Amino acid sequence: MSKILTLGEIMLRLATDTGIRLDHTQQFMAHYGGGEANVAISLANYGHEVKYASKVPSNPLGNAVKKHLQSYGVLVDSLIMGGERLGMYYLESGCGERGAAVVYDRAYSSFATMKELEWNFDQLFADVELIHLSGITPALSKNWQKMILELLKEAKKRSIKISFDMNYRGKLWTVLAAKQTFKEILPYVDYCSAGKLDALNFMDIPENESALNLESAADMAYYYQAMNAKYPNIQVFYSTLREVYSASHNTLQGTVWNQGELVTSKIHEINPIVDRVGGGDAFAGGILHGLLVKMKLNEMVDFATAASALKHTIHGDCNQFSIAEVKAFVAAESGKIVR
Amino acid sequence: MSKILTLGEIMLRLATDTGIRLDHTQQFMAHYGGGEANVAISLANYGHEVKYASKVPSNPLGNAVKKHLQSYGVLVDSLIMGGERLGMYYLESGCGERGAAVVYDRAYSSFATMKELEWNFDQLFADVELIHLSGITPALSKNWQKMILELLKEAKKRSIKISFDMNYRGKLWTVLAAKQTFKEILPYVDYCSAGKLDALNFMDIPENESALNLESAADMAYYYQAMNAKYPNIQVFYSTLREVYSASHNTLQGTVWNQGELVTSKIHEINPIVDRVGGGDAFAGGILHGLLVKMKLNEMVDFATAASALKHTIHGDCNQFSIAEVKAFVAAESGKIVR
Amino acid sequence: MSKILTLGEIMLRLATDTGIRLDHTQQFMAHYGGGEANVAISLANYGHEVKYASKVPSNPLGNAVKKHLQSYGVLVDSLIMGGERLGMYYLESGCGERGAAVVYDRAYSSFATMKELEWNFDQLFADVELIHLSGITPALSKNWQKMILELLKEAKKRSIKISFDMNYRGKLWTVLAAKQTFKEILPYVDYCSAGKLDALNFMDIPENESALNLESAADMAYYYQAMNAKYPNIQVFYSTLREVYSASHNTLQGTVWNQGELVTSKIHEINPIVDRVGGGDAFAGGILHGLLVKMKLNEMVDFATAASALKHTIHGDCNQFSIAEVKAFVAAESGKIVR
Amino acid sequence: MSKILTLGEIMLRLATDTGIRLDHTQQFMAHYGGGEANVAISLANYGHEVKYASKVPSNPLGNAVKKHLQSYGVLVDSLIMGGERLGMYYLESGCGERGAAVVYDRAYSSFATMKELEWNFDQLFADVELIHLSGITPALSKNWQKMILELLKEAKKRSIKISFDMNYRGKLWTVLAAKQTFKEILPYVDYCSAGKLDALNFMDIPENESALNLESAADMAYYYQAMNAKYPNIQVFYSTLREVYSASHNTLQGTVWNQGELVTSKIHEINPIVDRVGGGDAFAGGILHGLLVKMKLNEMVDFATAASALKHTIHGDCNQFSIAEVKAFVAAESGKIVR
Amino acid sequence: MSKILTLGEIMLRLATDTGIRLDHTQQFMAHYGGGEANVAISLANYGHEVKYASKVPSNPLGNAVKKHLQSYGVLVDSLIMGGERLGMYYLESGCGERGAAVVYDRAYSSFATMKELEWNFDQLFADVELIHLSGITPALSKNWQKMILELLKEAKKRSIKISFDMNYRGKLWTVLAAKQTFKEILPYVDYCSAGKLDALNFMDIPENESALNLESAADMAYYYQAMNAKYPNIQVFYSTLREVYSASHNTLQGTVWNQGELVTSKIHEINPIVDRVGGGDAFAGGILHGLLVKMKLNEMVDFATAASALKHTIHGDCNQFSIAEVKAFVAAESGKIVR
Amino acid sequence: MSKILTLGEIMLRLATDTGIRLDHTQQFMAHYGGGEANVAISLANYGHEVKYASKVPSNPLGNAVKKHLQSYGVLVDSLIMGGERLGMYYLESGCGERGAAVVYDRAYSSFATMKELEWNFDQLFADVELIHLSGITPALSKNWQKMILELLKEAKKRSIKISFDMNYRGKLWTVLAAKQTFKEILPYVDYCSAGKLDALNFMDIPENESALNLESAADMAYYYQAMNAKYPNIQVFYSTLREVYSASHNTLQGTVWNQGELVTSKIHEINPIVDRVGGGDAFAGGILHGLLVKMKLNEMVDFATAASALKHTIHGDCNQFSIAEVKAFVAAESGKIVR
Repeated sequence: MSKILTLGEIMLRLATDTGIRLDHTQQFMAHYGGGEANVAISLANYGHEVKYASKVPSNPLGNAVKKHLQSYGVLVDSLIMGGERLGMYYLESGCGERGAAVVYDRAYSSFATMKELEWNFDQLFADVELIHLSGITPALSKNWQKMILELLKEAKKRSIKISFDMNYRGKLWTVLAAKQTFKEILPYVDYCSAGKLDALNFMDIPENESALNLESAADMAYYYQAMNAKYPNIQVFYSTLREVYSASHNTLQGTVWNQGELVTSKIHEINPIVDRVGGGDAFAGGILHGLLVKMKLNEMVDFATAASALKHTIHGDCNQFSIAEVKAFVAAESGKIVR
Repeated sequence: MSKILTLGEIMLRLATDTGIRLDHTQQFMAHYGGGEANVAISLANYGHEVKYASKVPSNPLGNAVKKHLQSYGVLVDSLIMGGERLGMYYLESGCGERGAAVVYDRAYSSFATMKELEWNFDQLFADVELIHLSGITPALSKNWQKMILELLKEAKKRSIKISFDMNYRGKLWTVLAAKQTFKEILPYVDYCSAGKLDALNFMDIPENESALNLESAADMAYYYQAMNAKYPNIQVFYSTLREVYSASHNTLQGTVWNQGELVTSKIHEINPIVDRVGGGDAFAGGILHGLLVKMKLNEMVDFATAASALKHTIHGDCNQFSIAEVKAFVAAESGKIVR
Repeated sequence: MSKILTLGEIMLRLATDTGIRLDHTQQFMAHYGGGEANVAISLANYGHEVKYASKVPSNPLGNAVKKHLQSYGVLVDSLIMGGERLGMYYLESGCGERGAAVVYDRAYSSFATMKELEWNFDQLFADVELIHLSGITPALSKNWQKMILELLKEAKKRSIKISFDMNYRGKLWTVLAAKQTFKEILPYVDYCSAGKLDALNFMDIPENESALNLESAADMAYYYQAMNAKYPNIQVFYSTLREVYSASHNTLQGTVWNQGELVTSKIHEINPIVDRVGGGDAFAGGILHGLLVKMKLNEMVDFATAASALKHTIHGDCNQFSIAEVKAFVAAESGKIVR
Repeated sequence: MSKILTLGEIMLRLATDTGIRLDHTQQFMAHYGGGEANVAISLANYGHEVKYASKVPSNPLGNAVKKHLQSYGVLVDSLIMGGERLGMYYLESGCGERGAAVVYDRAYSSFATMKELEWNFDQLFADVELIHLSGITPALSKNWQKMILELLKEAKKRSIKISFDMNYRGKLWTVLAAKQTFKEILPYVDYCSAGKLDALNFMDIPENESALNLESAADMAYYYQAMNAKYPNIQVFYSTLREVYSASHNTLQGTVWNQGELVTSKIHEINPIVDRVGGGDAFAGGILHGLLVKMKLNEMVDFATAASALKHTIHGDCNQFSIAEVKAFVAAESGKIVR
Repeated sequence: MSKILTLGEIMLRLATDTGIRLDHTQQFMAHYGGGEANVAISLANYGHEVKYASKVPSNPLGNAVKKHLQSYGVLVDSLIMGGERLGMYYLESGCGERGAAVVYDRAYSSFATMKELEWNFDQLFADVELIHLSGITPALSKNWQKMILELLKEAKKRSIKISFDMNYRGKLWTVLAAKQTFKEILPYVDYCSAGKLDALNFMDIPENESALNLESAADMAYYYQAMNAKYPNIQVFYSTLREVYSASHNTLQGTVWNQGELVTSKIHEINPIVDRVGGGDAFAGGILHGLLVKMKLNEMVDFATAASALKHTIHGDCNQFSIAEVKAFVAAESGKIVR
Repeated sequence: MSKILTLGEIMLRLATDTGIRLDHTQQFMAHYGGGEANVAISLANYGHEVKYASKVPSNPLGNAVKKHLQSYGVLVDSLIMGGERLGMYYLESGCGERGAAVVYDRAYSSFATMKELEWNFDQLFADVELIHLSGITPALSKNWQKMILELLKEAKKRSIKISFDMNYRGKLWTVLAAKQTFKEILPYVDYCSAGKLDALNFMDIPENESALNLESAADMAYYYQAMNAKYPNIQVFYSTLREVYSASHNTLQGTVWNQGELVTSKIHEINPIVDRVGGGDAFAGGILHGLLVKMKLNEMVDFATAASALKHTIHGDCNQFSIAEVKAFVAAESGKIVR
């Protein structure tokens, strides 16, 4: 199978058990995750040769990140050990009407404070056919805004396919700042995870006035079409439509647009939600897998959405299911046990 | 902000994890709580100067009560350390159709066996503007039936506002006994937590025959009006309407009646319920806060019901949310996460 | 009360917590259970004198089985200690749309490798009035197919009533193999747990073409009638209709057919499900209890279905509720707490 | 094997984990135990037919007691279910120089408040050859001081051997009160667990002035001899010599005196101690087993002391080891693993 | 009792269970602590009115700090809520020969990045009679080196007694940098926690060549005397002599020097050690209590060393024992249980 | 660094917490380990390229094994997924005088039931310079006795160095059977883990009659010399001398003999022991690392013994320490913390 590179930040997540507040807990559950790392693990689970590039401190927490990635078979020879600290955040799990609360403590991390790309490009890109990046990385610093463009140019030069997840985070930068950066990035992109809000906020697409059903499939067709009109280099757009009934109950529907064709998955009922962090990355991982093995579009969206739905049922940021398990889940009746 | 006094019993609650029976468990979760203590903590969280008066044994369990209250900033200089034991109860958590089971072991407690009011009144009532009591205290003993009246008279003498939560407990006394006592108490009360059943059982209010929807807002208006007609001294009545679909799924709507005006909150979907113990106290805490800071009636009922709904999503008897958190919850969409 | 014997295999179940995968967990919850043992425990809880016959290794795991049974008052003088190992299985708990996953490791167990009935029949059957067996036992080996017939003949000879739960397990044998064995067994049976699929697969009953509602009460009447026509010796048939919305949410309705009369229970909403393993055994236990104490048919089906619904709300394979608790649950409103 | 009856109080113990204070813990470990119940379990583990008589409330805690006893095979037909509450105590585990701290909450228990012997004597004493009682029972109430004598007389009348563990508890009564009661009890006793302090405090034995080594074997010989001189009816005395280096490190040596002959066991190094509660009961259980099966005196003291040492290495009040395990421990080198 | 102020940094400690490595753990235990906060809690436990001044972020972790301090009754009106983050560190607990490992992540904390003293001095110092500071604070930044001197001058001006714990941390600054700062601080100090290494490294005291036993009492007398000769303003010096046999086994002896008089405590055997973090602060807390209530020197050193030894037996940074408990521990035999 | 292959069986270990018996526990801790896998992980931690060959079932337990190995960077391309089951064992942790108890359930495992070597030799041995095997593998079956010789011959043919750990397990085969097999194996071996008992039992070496101190260094020199005389092909012998004071307290001294030269490490005090399983493998891993990087003999024995001592302080079968950590431990004082 093909060789993929993902690059971004990975953090320690410290979470409370459901029903315990952050200021009251006597213990934390520890998980390691980050969008690009989660995608790397998904692809490794599906049998791809993937490597993950980042920078983590040379201390037990950096080692923990390494072990976490290695356990899934992700290659870590481009994981630099150095810098001051591992970014982290505290998560007070949500429940019912009460949404989760996040306290970030990610500033000054080894990755965020990088001033130049410390990798040897020939080594970093050796045999790579696809690179996956996200909009979180340029949100971390001015330096990263420059460096991400460097990476894109270098990848383009080497004819590497570029996957980009816009992943706007309002706690890290303004819509305006993001917009300026995204304008520079998007012309390089081949596959893009972007939804309606991304179209409106970052690509100057006007609202779809004819839409009867907001965020319906028809509505999404309009936005994907319009985004592709702006960036004809982007062949594939994808995103999920999520209905949030409560922190414990969501529905999820995947949508993929490939050169004019739109497909949608069935709507998954996710109730209860065990852990929704990384749900989007599991979807992206499924889509990239579909593109790499040239799945049919319908199969791809079903596979990716199923992977995302499965992710919601387990603790931790990354999808832990194999191709066979995801496919069995697509085929199974909800909640069936076999014995 | 103003100075409030709450007085009543606090107990140790020993609970099993969901899905484990009391006669099978190898461990118990420990929480400390009691209606008046819970209200005190709510008000302390909202920035009020509150003190809690009670009697607990001078042993590690009494200390635990003290630490629990102090951690929220509740003043404990009127918490008497003495007597034989701390009242307690065992809780087998409910789940779905199976309701929770409670085993009381509260007899002979330091508080229940008090024979006279051991506080110095000048000290107890110093600077106090509002006292909050409940119908559980007179249910504990003949002595407490006398002592609660003593407290009420003394408070009245000092022009302290009196808040009373009827809180009838069928495991502690009969409807008849409660009725006789409540008749003596209610003439002193300014703010009263009482619902339809209280009106029927303890105030000789006839059933509302014109009601189409039981326990609807209109129905509640009738009962509040009728109760006020009997006790014109009570300016404010409040209670929640709870629909119990299962032990894991309830809906909750708050109602407040203030000198003829009735307001109701939106209906909260609480699913799943983490811990419903103390839900009523969180509502009362919100109402008293609203009265103390002179919130508008609509805002007050929304605030108090939100506080109660939040309480259901955390372990432990007391509301652990600040004014800002409750208000954000009122404003937020269900289950939303911000990052 | 009367004396009952159940005989079958009991296993160690090692389960993960919800949301943790088998290949990721650092700990397992341990439970002991098996269909016939679970039925024995139900009946012991209801005050019957019950003994359980099986074979477990003479090691700490065998001792654990013994302690488990004894704790509920099940008699273990026919529990043989010997052989190589205790059968076991790993359970990855399901959640929402994701069903539970089971990994069996039960081959070569002390029970499954038995070559002859090692009990002294006079001792085994002393005072026994009812024996309960299941279709899992003959699925374990050719030897057990022979031995189960031996047991049936011996029981018949002693005028002992025979209860049989068909309990077909596709992971243990084929439909064809099961069919052949069941044909030999069923002529001995008095009470039989069997549903529509059993009728179709093992008794050559043709599909009910007039059925409008699949698995409705009317539909079940057809199948029970038809099975009774084939095996007029079987006076009582019973089974539950389960609607699986997800691994966390099922509905459950009990049905019993007794000499031409069909009754059904109300439909229980089970949401969330704590642990559905043993739900069928709890139903069987309730039915057998009803038959033993000669409950009315309606009461019996309500009792047995309530017992099964209750079982779903606790961890572990066996029903842990007394007659009084099951009856209170039948009478109570869903999720009600009394205090 | 022979039939034994033990009778006394059993309590719920709520303990913290090592290093967590009672007023700080968020959870408790639950164990059930009491001297006479612990002895019953020891004897059941050794294959004897034992029954335990007591009174516990008819609630889930009473059921838990029943399940606990049954799991070890102790007969519970004389365990009365009734009364108000189960006695309990809180244990803050000790560690190193810091001893454990106990908070009793045992007053008003179902057993302690018994006013008359509620058992049918013919049923209670049916087939009983040995009864085991302790000095804790008469310490509970005046009533129990009378009732224990009633029991002794009744047992004597039926030629039942009487075993008595003096077990003086300073938190329950004074030395003087105990002395008066013990004087009435001891004339009935055949086997007595009593040490040097018991001799000095309750039997007016003068201090052994010639002793060079306090609590040495020679010293014990003096006291046992002297006690026997006072109470020639007592054939067997036994007790352990414990050196407390810290809460985590004790040494333990058993001593038995049988009609003039004294034997002592080797000195066991117990380091670390997991749980010393019930260590004395495990010793008594071993001695009684030795007497019942007529072990040689040396073997008996080795067996009983080993059982007691083993008890210190596990959580919970009762000895959980079989004859074979205790004997293997006597024979093994310290800490050896076999694989 | 008198009013004390302590001021310094408090951090979140995330620790693994014994035997689990930092890069392998799936959960962390959370404790909050810092030298000056720990001393404040000790003094609050002993009944003093104490306030703690620091700066923590206005987020759930800052709230947790506040609740932690309040639960012990420490006043928090000078605890500023603001800044970016709470300092933290990861602790891999040691065991036997393997020492604990610490990973600091404390840079950029709200406290460490303070640029000026944000307190109103009149409010901060109102009624204060004693201030306690440590050498960790000036190690945090150049700013804090200035600010600590400002605090000292202001305290001196107001005739407040000054207590200083040198507490040199090699991971924060060099010996040289510390020396320069300490030279400026020490002339203000009244009570000083300093040992032999402090004398050698920071006060230019020559090695005690006549010492036969290193770190013996006689040796300490020499160093205390010499330090006092340099800084005659310091009336009281104190420190503990610790023999580290392993991470699980230390001995501890307290020493206090007061205006020429040296006293030492008995040597405590601490085995096993539950948590040694904060052991020095518990000693300091005991000494300051002794000085405040004018204990005799011998009693003071026994009390303070006992408090420190007790601290080693519980989890968490702060001493959780009352005066009565510490005194009982001084008087008790090692490991004794009373019941 | 060089490429190493280890081959053998890996099992699931299910252990109780200290102080909980196997027949009483409600949960198990899960660890995966086996001698050769543990050595592979040690070497991977030290930076070597290592692969581990074995056969595990193609199910979640097999996946767990794979993840476990991968997390440490061990190559798993020769880990065959197939067969029926994963071997396992239950461990009741020992404590003080009570040794651990092991219940094996390893028969019929995927590895033990292998009938032929299923690897492609060119792939298996590609670039391999050292192979590590143990005496447990031939103990599993007649087939493995043949197959291990096949492997040895093939390795020899390819000039691969052969390391062998005799590791006799009395629960798997007799001394006689082992002796016969070892005689065939040892002529191929270059490095051998063997102690005095191995010399006596399997190599017909006569007892060292001149020995004053049993198992002293001098004694070991005699045995190593004698073994080398029998098998001159073996250049290096190594083993540890372990003094078992209790299950919680051992001492450990390493010995290595290299072509006539004997070195011994210092004696490590291991108290308390967290988990001694895998202690010998950690020693072997250290020795092999020393040989691979050509450490001096003294340094090697110190390094390997330190690695083994460290292993005893953590849960799990494998050494989790890096070269730097082991070296720091060699250099450090016992139990020292740095901060």
